[in-house]
Formats: sequence, C-alpha cells, structure tokens
Amino acid sequence: MEYGFELLKKERSTGARLGRIKTPHGEFSTPVFMPVGTRGSVKGLSPADLEEIGVDIILANTYHLYLRPGHELIGSLGGLHRFMNWHGPILTDSGGFQVFSLCGLRKIDEGGVRFNSHLDGSKCVLTPESAIGIQEALGADIIMPLDECTPYPADREYALNSMNLTHRWALRCKAAKSANGQALFGIVQGGMYGDLREDSARTLVDIGFDGYAVGGLSVGEEKALMQEMAYAALRHLPEDRPRYLMGVGAPEDLVFGVEAGVDMFDCVMPTRNARNGTLFTRRGKLVIKNAQYERDPSPVEEGCSCYTCRNFSRAYLRHLFMSGEILAARLNTVHNLYYYAGLMKEMRSAIKDDRFEAFKKGFFEDRALTGRE
Amino acid sequence: MEYGFELLKKERSTGARLGRIKTPHGEFSTPVFMPVGTRGSVKGLSPADLEEIGVDIILANTYHLYLRPGHELIGSLGGLHRFMNWHGPILTDSGGFQVFSLCGLRKIDEGGVRFNSHLDGSKCVLTPESAIGIQEALGADIIMPLDECTPYPADREYALNSMNLTHRWALRCKAAKSANGQALFGIVQGGMYGDLREDSARTLVDIGFDGYAVGGLSVGEEKALMQEMAYAALRHLPEDRPRYLMGVGAPEDLVFGVEAGVDMFDCVMPTRNARNGTLFTRRGKLVIKNAQYERDPSPVEEGCSCYTCRNFSRAYLRHLFMSGEILAARLNTVHNLYYYAGLMKEMRSAIKDDRFEAFKKGFFEDRALTGRE
Repeated sequence: MEYGFELLKKERSTGARLGRIKTPHGEFSTPVFMPVGTRGSVKGLSPADLEEIGVDIILANTYHLYLRPGHELIGSLGGLHRFMNWHGPILTDSGGFQVFSLCGLRKIDEGGVRFNSHLDGSKCVLTPESAIGIQEALGADIIMPLDECTPYPADREYALNSMNLTHRWALRCKAAKSANGQALFGIVQGGMYGDLREDSARTLVDIGFDGYAVGGLSVGEEKALMQEMAYAALRHLPEDRPRYLMGVGAPEDLVFGVEAGVDMFDCVMPTRNARNGTLFTRRGKLVIKNAQYERDPSPVEEGCSCYTCRNFSRAYLRHLFMSGEILAARLNTVHNLYYYAGLMKEMRSAIKDDRFEAFKKGFFEDRALTGRE
Repeated sequence: MEYGFELLKKERSTGARLGRIKTPHGEFSTPVFMPVGTRGSVKGLSPADLEEIGVDIILANTYHLYLRPGHELIGSLGGLHRFMNWHGPILTDSGGFQVFSLCGLRKIDEGGVRFNSHLDGSKCVLTPESAIGIQEALGADIIMPLDECTPYPADREYALNSMNLTHRWALRCKAAKSANGQALFGIVQGGMYGDLREDSARTLVDIGFDGYAVGGLSVGEEKALMQEMAYAALRHLPEDRPRYLMGVGAPEDLVFGVEAGVDMFDCVMPTRNARNGTLFTRRGKLVIKNAQYERDPSPVEEGCSCYTCRNFSRAYLRHLFMSGEILAARLNTVHNLYYYAGLMKEMRSAIKDDRFEAFKKGFFEDRALTGRE
C-alpha cells in the first residue's frame, strides 16, 4: 500500500479532524497516539501485547538504533519491522532531538551535528543526508528530517537562526530521500515566537512534505504558551496533510491538540509513568505505591477492559511495584497505553458525531470528581 | 477436586514413572517441572504467558510473601491464586530454605528459626506451626513443612541432629495442619550421608504424608554425590506417593531425576538464567550476548514453537539484552520455560512408550553435537 492521507471530516464547532493514513504496513485512523519504542521495543511489551491493546502505529528512535545495534545491522536483517517483529506502521524520528537532549557535548554547524555517543563517548556525526540514510535502512513508514529542536528559553535571534537552519536541512533531507515509498514529514520550529512559527509553517509547506510536524514544544514552557505556539503553526498548515505534534503529551494535552486540529501525537509519558508506577485513569493519575491501595481489591480503573484491569487488583499491582518485579512495568504499561488508545478512540468517535465539545466537557468533569491531578 | 496421586505406569527398564496429580486447582501429569514465582510472579511473565507456555504448576516462596506483602493481606484478598490471577495448581515451600540462604543472622532451636528480614532487618520467627499457618493463608494446593536445609558440608553429627529436628518439626507441621484440602509433603534430609537419607525417608513415611520431597541437595556438592543421595532417599519412598526433588535443576539433572523415579522438580535456573541471557537448547546453553549472534537471523532454537522462537531472531534478542530492555528478560524466560516444559513432555512420552533409555541417549548425543556446555 502506498502512503496517503485522507481527511474524512472536520468537526462542526472545533478544529478537530477525522482522518485516515495509509502506509506500506497498514492503515489507521487519526487522530492517533503513537507509543514510543525507543530501542526497537516498547519497553516491556511484545508486539502481541501492542496488538491486543489496539496500538495502530509506534515510534522508534533513530538515535538509539543508530548507536546500537546500528542501522546497517537492522537493514541487513530486513529492516526494523522484521527485526522487532512489529508489522504495523512505524514512524522514526530523525535522531536530532536525542542528540540535543542526551549528549552533553555536541556541536551544530551548517553541515549537521557532531556529538559524543551517550553509550561510550565515541564521536558521531549526524547530517541531514545521513539522518535520511539511516531511516531508509531502518525502513520506517514515516520518516522525519534532521532539525534543531530550539532550546527553551531562546532569544529571538537564536530561534530565527535555528529555524532557518532547520529549513535548509529540511530541503537537503527532501533532496537526499529516495523514491522508496517512505513518507517524509517537515518539522515546524520557531521557538516561542508566533511569527516565526508562522514563517516556518509557510516555508515548509512551500517546500512540500507528506505531512507536517510541530517540533520544539513541550520543552519546559507553560501549557498556555505551548498551545499558542501550536496554534500559530497549525493554522498555516494545509488541510490535506496530517499534522503531528511531537512529544506531546499528557491526556489533557491530547484533548487540546485534537481540538486544535492535530492528527498525530507521541510521548513517553504513558510508558515512562507506567514504569514509575503512575497510572492514568478517567479521574486522573493514580500512584500505585500509595498506601491506600495496599489492600484494594479493585482494578486500576473500574470498567477498563485492558488485560491488567481485567485480571489484577490494585493491591497486587502495588505489591509488584513495591517488590520491583518486572511484571509491574509491563502490566502498568499495558494499562496506560490502553487508556491512551481508548482516549483517542473516544475522541475520534466524538468528532464523527460532531460532539467534541461535549466530550471535552465530560473529560474535564470526570477529572474534577476526585482530588487526583 | 480433592488432592490425589495416581501412578499410571513405571517404565520397563528404568525407575522412571508416569503419574497424575489432582489438586483443588486442576490436575497435571508427572514428571513435571515447576517454575518458580518467588514473590507472586514468575519474573516477567503474566499468567497468560504461563498458560501459553504450557506450565502446569508453579512454586511460590512462603518466605518472600510472608515478608511482603504478608500472608494475611493475601489471605484477606482471597488467597494467592486470586491475588496473582493464576488459577492452576500452586506449591508453596515452607520458607525455611530462604531463611537459611538469605538471612545472615538466624538462630535455630527446637521451637523454630529466628531471623532478621533481608528487606529491613526486622526480627521474625518461623515455627513449624506458623509455617503451616502462613501457607494455609496463602492457600496453595501443596504445602511443605518447615525443615532445616542441612548446610554443605556438614559433619555427621550435625547432619543427624539437623535431620532429627526436621523430623520433629514434620510431626508438628502435620499436627498443626487443618483438614482443608491442602496436601502436605514430608521433606527428607540427612546431609550427604546415605544411611541418614534412608533413615529420614523411612521416618517420614512412618509419619505419613501426601507426598515426599528430597531436600538439601544441589547445595554445592558434586553431581555424582547429589545423585547418590537422591537415590538413597528415593528407594525408600512409597510407590503410591509423588516424589519431589527440591531445587533441582539443570536439564541433565531432570533427566537423571526422572530416570531415578522423581515426579516433581523446581529450580530458578530456567528463569534466572534467562534474565542473565543464558538460553537452553537441545544442544546446550546459548549465551545470547556472544558476538557470534550479533547478526544471526535464526531463532534461539530451530524448530522450537515458543513465542520467542516463532517471532524473534538471535540478533534481536542479543540487541534487547545488550540494551538492558525489559523485554529481553521476558522473551528469554518464555523460551527457557518452554524448553523445560518440552523436555518434561518428551520424557513423559518416552516413559509411556517404554523408551526412556533411548530418549536419554538422544538427549546427551544432541548436546555432544556442539561444543556448547
């Protein structure tokens, strides 16, 4: 199947959109949330678990796979899908974000970014061309261009120069890309400057990509500012291409994003929080180590149909977590990803029925019922 | 269903036996291997995984569950089966072995054993009566009496006194036990003295238990000595009760044990080795971190039908292990337990067809085909 995006409808009273993305490894509905499988594995879960949860597409990190086991190795074994035995769609990032967040020593210039591996300190280089080459070897369905994730805070001059570099790299990425069926998205930058966000969106649309991501957000700024910047970019993106809000976010951020017309999200929050014992529910977060759950026979969330809630009590999950059992990470992750998948499904259903505002009202009312955050 | 053991057949030319054990939580064929679920979880695996692997019965550790989350908590939530959502048979040990192996400070006297918790150093006491009470709260199908696992090496006098203490405790355990449908086994001790092993077996048979375990072996002695001591006990155990060789062992030990007439085994080896990256195959152990597997597209074992071998390459498993991914522990554990379950199944089939010696010959020939240990 060739890559393609179909906008099925726009919700009547909000910016929310219902769509369908086709990829060489299957199609899925949007808005969608992509769990993060950093090193070729969504931590603790097998591909069978992901299918059971109802995961449509996963994200894998180019940076980590480039360092270990190496994209050439994965390519020689038939690509990432075969390597990890996940036969649904995969999106890979460019590796740039991890270089900026994980590597202490790094140097950016026109050519690309030099950095020391966080594993062994060895010297590495990522260029727009090599970022594409690596992602072609990995064979994801959707790939991303190398960009600079503008740090926060950054002054206007830095943000402008950084954005322009990202644009020049985007052009080089598009030029370097083979006609191999992989979709290439553009990444809007521009720091926390609305006019730069607009410039960036317009420039990337002029270059032309298969979809558009908004990067450099959820990097420490206030939520209101994040939302403002996302809007500033989104309103200049074309209707007929998917929009992807990178690295976002908490459940309430997904509700905001969908309302604003975002089609794709990714975030480590559901998986990382699960490993830390924080579980998502309709009524907010539940910290499983809390003493109140010590003898609690009820599931994490009444009415939840995930494997964890169907089979285990809070008391057992608390015991596993307190004992440091591997199974704790897994069962918690199953629940959190199921919650996220369910939230997206509910939103798609609300969009279909033109009742997104009512959905949103209910979403925040449910949370207000308890004191949980 | 009430507890019961049926000896279905004895193999023609060896001591190997085919049997069937009924318990309140289902029945299974023997010889059987019991994976260890120390803290109410077979590390990394869900009950669904255990079922898919074909696990018939699991062992849980009284010591660990007594300390955390506590047997009263588990009892108040409906018992261990419900707590961990494993609805097949469970055997619990008495806790004695862990006290001797995990607790630095401990004091044994006629009454029982005093020890400091390895978790927080708090003072604890285990008596024959409390070991039974704890196991009754946990609700396992088969429970074990408190015994002293005679240290190795131990002089004859120590071994004799220790054995006699174990016998007195066994009597107290039997007296303390409720008529609640749980089966209680006796544990043969006697150190590395064949005549004491015989004495112990005879004494316990006189007291009368639902089955007989041979304890205190695989504690550092040579394999030949372990086998000699096991034989010394086994030959004095009755045909109509199951025999359980505690804490054993490696695949070749299971073959020996079955040949000698053992019906039940448990060992952390398949699960612990899995987490350390050592995988069991017909041709011996495979250490997945070895560089030779870096680009190896083949499964751990050709022809193996486990979830891991059906879906993942050695190269991927090596990558997961080298990256410290949680999934490595899980996929390796699935394979090792499947290997152990398959080995037991093959042995049962060989006994049925009166070809155990041919099976054993093939087992050791397969291993000789490679240089792997």
